[in-house]
Amino acid sequence: MSDTSNYTPPKVWTWDQASGGAFANINRPIAGATHEKELPVGRHPLQLYSLGTPNGQKVTIMLEELLALGHSGAEYDAWLIKISDGDQFGSGFVDVNPNSKIPALMDRSGPKPVRVFESGAILLYLAEKFDAFLPKDHATRAECLSWLFWQMGSAPYLGGGFGHFYAYAPVKIEYAINRFAMEVKRQLDVLDRRLAETEYVSGNDYTIADIAIFPWYGGLAKGLQYNAGEFLSVQDYKNVQRWADAVLDRPAVKRGRKVNRLSGDLSDQLHERHDSADFDHKTQDKLQPPKV
Amino acid sequence: MSDTSNYTPPKVWTWDQASGGAFANINRPIAGATHEKELPVGRHPLQLYSLGTPNGQKVTIMLEELLALGHSGAEYDAWLIKISDGDQFGSGFVDVNPNSKIPALMDRSGPKPVRVFESGAILLYLAEKFDAFLPKDHATRAECLSWLFWQMGSAPYLGGGFGHFYAYAPVKIEYAINRFAMEVKRQLDVLDRRLAETEYVSGNDYTIADIAIFPWYGGLAKGLQYNAGEFLSVQDYKNVQRWADAVLDRPAVKRGRKVNRLSGDLSDQLHERHDSADFDHKTQDKLQPPKV
Repeated sequence: MSDTSNYTPPKVWTWDQASGGAFANINRPIAGATHEKELPVGRHPLQLYSLGTPNGQKVTIMLEELLALGHSGAEYDAWLIKISDGDQFGSGFVDVNPNSKIPALMDRSGPKPVRVFESGAILLYLAEKFDAFLPKDHATRAECLSWLFWQMGSAPYLGGGFGHFYAYAPVKIEYAINRFAMEVKRQLDVLDRRLAETEYVSGNDYTIADIAIFPWYGGLAKGLQYNAGEFLSVQDYKNVQRWADAVLDRPAVKRGRKVNRLSGDLSDQLHERHDSADFDHKTQDKLQPPKV
Repeated sequence: MSDTSNYTPPKVWTWDQASGGAFANINRPIAGATHEKELPVGRHPLQLYSLGTPNGQKVTIMLEELLALGHSGAEYDAWLIKISDGDQFGSGFVDVNPNSKIPALMDRSGPKPVRVFESGAILLYLAEKFDAFLPKDHATRAECLSWLFWQMGSAPYLGGGFGHFYAYAPVKIEYAINRFAMEVKRQLDVLDRRLAETEYVSGNDYTIADIAIFPWYGGLAKGLQYNAGEFLSVQDYKNVQRWADAVLDRPAVKRGRKVNRLSGDLSDQLHERHDSADFDHKTQDKLQPPKV
């Protein structure tokens, strides 16, 4: 890698210029499948192919919330996609999400399977399908959608920007860390000011905006990500803290955070979820490492 | 700035660590208004506060498309928000978008004004309000929403990642340019493979997914952004090229791209738009620099 002060980009970028970092082996400049591999299909209407990252958690939290409300049509099989193994480049997964990112959902409840990809699209799809966690009042619905999209446009600066350069890049690049730390602190402050006015992000009610924002910004505020709590002074965002505690206290959130998870305590990891009783049988996972 | 090889982040990040680059003066780690300033309000139902960047273009293209379909309720006043002057930190703007980013919309057609922010949320809001550019078929609608959210989650890697480090950062950082060039090429390839199968992004019809994706990835493919066409070999993405040409050929797209624009030929800049006839009176702008 050149010193930053004397690098001149070439006229045409080529793949061999790419350098390392965590995930270097799974970053590619081309799309599409690298190998043939069919996806498993379980017995439930909804088939989720995911991993317990913040984007994955959004969907498992939503599904657990829907089930907690009594929507049995939200029963789901959650299959593990190990991105470090390149599962997202299997032909079956690419058919569900051509962007090769988790989470990806197949809705098999109708006459023809329907694919949905991008966590925000999946939340909106499920909210509309079950008429839940999406305000009915016109202005409040607009507010909810605005914050849902805010999360989608903002979190890449947290995950692909700050998280990458602070935690994963092979060298610490001061300019990049400063750039993204400043933006993430601004985003936390945007959220903190909003939550000074309202109990939840869209207003009085817990909605898909909270479900989208919590895994990223709530997780960051509670020190669950990047070990960056002290660096970003997350304790200063008092309203974010109050809201994150309330969300984290919801039983469906506790369950959703465990599904497809490969990090943290083994007791918090439910590698696959095919039945609500799976949460009670977790000790199996402690004894048997997942075979996926 | 330290050499990349020996920088160690401090325990706690503070604002004085931030360094330069274009837009350094408008990047802040705190949210909220910096000064009192009311927003102007015109005579139309929709009041848009924006700038002719790719995110701004999405909304003006959508509004011009709706007007072209005969939806007179989509008549709008487009006010210029000069982000280089900090207009996005005025109190009136922050009331409409607490995230201080363009575009922001106030819908004054009902009994109470409704705010909508984030370009993707505005597109969806308008598509639902006018029942246009959003497929009615269940699976095609899910596809449209998936691609709409794909754009929202992907473009930060193009704009805030690649564009920043390739075009705007004060030094050329090889690792960062490689990281984001690779990702943007992957994204272009995702889109290219999709457009090999379908005429438009969601299927046979032009939708808000095209309107969202075109200003970023169509613009990049047509060399309209960052002067990076050769660097990213954009001519290789033949299906993106075919689609971008088709979108660019639409009269509403041509009009929408001119609104709130401050760059390029003066004849392509309509700094404010308050009437459809404004597009015919552009010569005024050539003679008089905008007073905003």
